[in-house]
Amino acid sequence: MSLLVVGSIAFDSIETPKGSVEDALGGSATFFAYAASFFTKPRLVGVVGDDFPAEHRQLLSARDIDTTGLVTQTGKTFRWKGRYHQDMNTRDTIAVHLNVLNTFDPVLPESFRDSSHVFLANSSPVLQKKVLEQIHRPQLVMADTMDLWIETQHDELMSLLPELDGLLLNDSEARLLSEDDNLVRAGQAIRQMGPKFVIIKKGEHGAVLFSEDGVFAIPAYPTANVTDPTGAGDSFAGGLMGYLDSDQTPPPGRLRRAMVYGSVLASLTVEGFGLDRLTWTKRSEIEERVDQYRTMLAF
Amino acid sequence: MSLLVVGSIAFDSIETPKGSVEDALGGSATFFAYAASFFTKPRLVGVVGDDFPAEHRQLLSARDIDTTGLVTQTGKTFRWKGRYHQDMNTRDTIAVHLNVLNTFDPVLPESFRDSSHVFLANSSPVLQKKVLEQIHRPQLVMADTMDLWIETQHDELMSLLPELDGLLLNDSEARLLSEDDNLVRAGQAIRQMGPKFVIIKKGEHGAVLFSEDGVFAIPAYPTANVTDPTGAGDSFAGGLMGYLDSDQTPPPGRLRRAMVYGSVLASLTVEGFGLDRLTWTKRSEIEERVDQYRTMLAF
Repeated sequence: MSLLVVGSIAFDSIETPKGSVEDALGGSATFFAYAASFFTKPRLVGVVGDDFPAEHRQLLSARDIDTTGLVTQTGKTFRWKGRYHQDMNTRDTIAVHLNVLNTFDPVLPESFRDSSHVFLANSSPVLQKKVLEQIHRPQLVMADTMDLWIETQHDELMSLLPELDGLLLNDSEARLLSEDDNLVRAGQAIRQMGPKFVIIKKGEHGAVLFSEDGVFAIPAYPTANVTDPTGAGDSFAGGLMGYLDSDQTPPPGRLRRAMVYGSVLASLTVEGFGLDRLTWTKRSEIEERVDQYRTMLAF
Repeated sequence: MSLLVVGSIAFDSIETPKGSVEDALGGSATFFAYAASFFTKPRLVGVVGDDFPAEHRQLLSARDIDTTGLVTQTGKTFRWKGRYHQDMNTRDTIAVHLNVLNTFDPVLPESFRDSSHVFLANSSPVLQKKVLEQIHRPQLVMADTMDLWIETQHDELMSLLPELDGLLLNDSEARLLSEDDNLVRAGQAIRQMGPKFVIIKKGEHGAVLFSEDGVFAIPAYPTANVTDPTGAGDSFAGGLMGYLDSDQTPPPGRLRRAMVYGSVLASLTVEGFGLDRLTWTKRSEIEERVDQYRTMLAF
């Protein structure tokens, strides 16, 4: 088994009611790969500028993340600056500098083209499709998307959806894409657009899976210590697909358990700024939270 | 076992994106008692005006709801008019006419004072306390409250809380009462104010229970057919306490199962205007949804 992620690597500057951080290592591919590294050895494809420090590479390599596909281009690494509101559920983007990400056209290393599990982190559906075409015979492909692509590249997104096993998006994006305010109908409608399963992320309210086995909803793991929600969605995806890549039991239980692992990774991520909390997370801690989930959901 | 509810009986005029209804039978005590009637024979205390039609009384009596405590006063029944937004999660109150509810000072029938389970539906904490003092030795008392009382009768509410077994409130009210935006901390903080357990209602996102056994969160039962959310919270409470009144197994499983029954009753309620959907609900349908919950939450 082998898990590939193609996405962004970023320097994030973040303000939350709990504090602030400057130029922390972030980006969708980073959070995804780091979360997945608790279960498997993820392959990462992304681009950084020549300002990307060696210690960040080491942080990834130390987790057995394969950075063969990490391209360094002349210029600056992608930067994002955001400020979270008091409730931590909403945020304002203060600044986005795409920098080297602006012209990035991912070419997969030959050694990555046999990947069995593929996560296309949020980017234009055109780019996502170009990546997908480079992979020989993926077993499971999941993609993330966002309001920008739903609105500006709708046709391109619609042509990508039938190629996916899973689509991951948040509740407001699901409402936008389906043009339906009811999330249950929205999830079902999006499945009709092509993906075999749809996962709607609801932040502090958990996530809902729509698949041929029906609906599986889980609350978020209840954490009292939300410090920085940045990267929670990508950590969720990373925990989910990392677990899928490592677990060979047949569905349906597999995808449900993967949702729980994803939620646990997301709950850990939000307890620190950037990747911080994950850097001192132990696998045993993950299993403890999964056990607590099981207790919490039993009735 | 015996379950008492003291609360409002109303004529609701409701507009939702799915349609509208005029002067439908509603009110917190009505929804609560109707939902509870699937499990037990609830005792109802409330007030109506002389405009309250015989068919409404029959609707309640037909469900074995004991209306000995239903007082008729000269004047009009309480009326509420509201309009739901497109997302069904928020609403505007268009008109409130308290009418006979304005001067209602509930005196419990002697035959109700031995009630084992008591639900104090949303009203002023002063009134809730006066009701509670009339009951001999209740086994389990749960109360609902709202932002109005948190803001205008804070001290009275704080003196009521230690007398309660359970407090039921929605997420924004929990944040207001605890002055904490994190719902996990909010629930824990409110437990410190006196009630043995706290249930935070989150509408379409489900509910969270805080008790000595920790946190139990459940998603809402996923219904694609939300027609009118009015009464969902009181139906939740009615299903929950109706089940508690009928189930004699010891906690903790009891309260968790009760939460599931409450959620199922709420999910049914929102599928029609006012009480409509509940009037043709079968007990077997409730058990089917509970079974589906179990499947949905299993991983």
